[in-house]
Amino acid sequence: MAAADSRAAAPAGRRMLEEIREQPAALRRLVESSEGIADVARWLREAPPNAVRLVAHGTSDNAATFGVYAFGLLPHWMALRDSISLTVYYDVEFETDDSVVIALSQSGETPDVVQYVEHMRARGTRTLAITNAEDSTLARLTDRVLLLHAGPEHAVAATKTYVNSLGALALLAGHAGGHGREVADALRATADLLAEETISLERSVATMAVHFSSLKRMFVIGRGVELATAREIALKLQEAARVAADALTATDLAHGPVAAVDRSLPIWAIATTGESLPAVVEATKRARALGAQVIASGAAAGSIDDASFLLPTSPAPMPLLSPLISVLPGQLFAHALGLAKGLDPDAPTGLSKVTRVP
Amino acid sequence: MAAADSRAAAPAGRRMLEEIREQPAALRRLVESSEGIADVARWLREAPPNAVRLVAHGTSDNAATFGVYAFGLLPHWMALRDSISLTVYYDVEFETDDSVVIALSQSGETPDVVQYVEHMRARGTRTLAITNAEDSTLARLTDRVLLLHAGPEHAVAATKTYVNSLGALALLAGHAGGHGREVADALRATADLLAEETISLERSVATMAVHFSSLKRMFVIGRGVELATAREIALKLQEAARVAADALTATDLAHGPVAAVDRSLPIWAIATTGESLPAVVEATKRARALGAQVIASGAAAGSIDDASFLLPTSPAPMPLLSPLISVLPGQLFAHALGLAKGLDPDAPTGLSKVTRVP
Repeated sequence: MAAADSRAAAPAGRRMLEEIREQPAALRRLVESSEGIADVARWLREAPPNAVRLVAHGTSDNAATFGVYAFGLLPHWMALRDSISLTVYYDVEFETDDSVVIALSQSGETPDVVQYVEHMRARGTRTLAITNAEDSTLARLTDRVLLLHAGPEHAVAATKTYVNSLGALALLAGHAGGHGREVADALRATADLLAEETISLERSVATMAVHFSSLKRMFVIGRGVELATAREIALKLQEAARVAADALTATDLAHGPVAAVDRSLPIWAIATTGESLPAVVEATKRARALGAQVIASGAAAGSIDDASFLLPTSPAPMPLLSPLISVLPGQLFAHALGLAKGLDPDAPTGLSKVTRVP
Repeated sequence: MAAADSRAAAPAGRRMLEEIREQPAALRRLVESSEGIADVARWLREAPPNAVRLVAHGTSDNAATFGVYAFGLLPHWMALRDSISLTVYYDVEFETDDSVVIALSQSGETPDVVQYVEHMRARGTRTLAITNAEDSTLARLTDRVLLLHAGPEHAVAATKTYVNSLGALALLAGHAGGHGREVADALRATADLLAEETISLERSVATMAVHFSSLKRMFVIGRGVELATAREIALKLQEAARVAADALTATDLAHGPVAAVDRSLPIWAIATTGESLPAVVEATKRARALGAQVIASGAAAGSIDDASFLLPTSPAPMPLLSPLISVLPGQLFAHALGLAKGLDPDAPTGLSKVTRVP
């Protein structure tokens, strides 16, 4: 009761901000629990899956987007964000199916994810839950469980459970591919960088939020591993700041959506050093030519010419882990923008912490 | 030269409207060419793939979204919209890879799709192009080619090549699963329905377009096979009418984006009879409760309570083919809305017919 009262009395957006600040500590807790993750990886390697079927919604689905890259890059396993409908609504049984299911849900209660796992278990498919809730339906249903160790998350807009979901997927893929220790070390260094960056970025986003206080629409673009970041930043902007934000790959922007760009539709570009950077640079040039304001974030933010705002971050200790840092400017900006618009980022309209819709 | 002149003189949006009207004839041409599709299906069945890797951008990628369902429902093959980056930028070779590549591009020239196919061919993976351009780079590169037979498409916003891409995927999946003739017959009936619906829908969308002439943002929701429709309608709204439209599954709407919904952000719901209808009904209820206007289209549009606008369509002759009809109200509305906003739907800003960006 006391806890509930003190939470009710928190100033607008306080919980979300505190949870963003807790991310480095939460990530360190996860890494220290990684012996359990190594066990799960051994279990997977006993019969390497022909496909890793990731199922999730919302923030967890954005983590699944990252999972496609983590499993592709480390153990070279094909992973996909699976269609839940094909299994739950249409009851399709796939031919030649030696896959493994990874269900992601911070609450462990997402109804159609639970149903999907029930269907797949009944067919004898191996199942794994990645969740923050040890005592959840999903954790009870699946063969194995990876706990996020993020600690209680009270803000509706998930932040530290997202970073830890990426960390858990990276550790699992790392152990599956024989790089577990390397990933764990890189995650420890990532936690240190996150702690440093949080302080300086909190200041940078405050000015920007005032400038954008009437923002209603935005495109967020990334490519490669940063597609997950683009999707998660767009979701935070929707939840915490009521912006109709759409996430796209840099290349997809040019295949149609660029036609909607104008002075009132800014582009947020996640620029990370690597092979996919030219696609992001090119996409922002086209958007600038149409009069759009550009916000550039990430370790290669400086490569984006003519950006109206720069939110540079440190390079990650390992390219795959870049999204754990790249998401931070977006989380903080969405929070600051929500406040600047007079909203309470902790209490988005129409949402509750556990989503129980069909 | 004469052709170019006569095109330049066309009234705003004329080409797009003509091409929408040509869809029934284009679809019939495709069905009559389906002997070639049956051959390709036989070639695939010689060694059933453990995964069908679909690669595309823009409208073709929305067709790929449909392909995941077509291959899942008919031959029970796992299909995925593959990450182009993992192959093109990170050069990952997957373990246990007995997949087949299907590259979709109406022009056959999309640069990173071409590069992806080059990488996969070099590894000995079977490749197939689905394209409207017989003499294209993609058609020359791949082992097999399915031509769309849509006829020349001049409007930048693709319409008849989309419907024929869905038709080609349905025929291929149908032949692969031993239902080729059934799909062909159902597509012929679909072409007849499309012809009838076009006339009545052209009238209905005209009134709606005037009402929404200051529309800047929209969410488009669908579920199951209609996720492809939601994505394609959102893309047409971006291209032809400069609306920042975001496509979501009905369930994903509840996992965050619903927080951005208010009176200025209407929801377009694609309602089709079937297992996933309750999720769509539930999502629109939540949006209505937040003050959003709801547009309901599709064969089950009447199941959506309190919709401000209804654009009902006929049920498809086969549930899988529903998206070929469901997309029509969105194509016509995007066109009418572009005109109502004083834009030229044939000439979206910043786009050309063949997208050649990296």
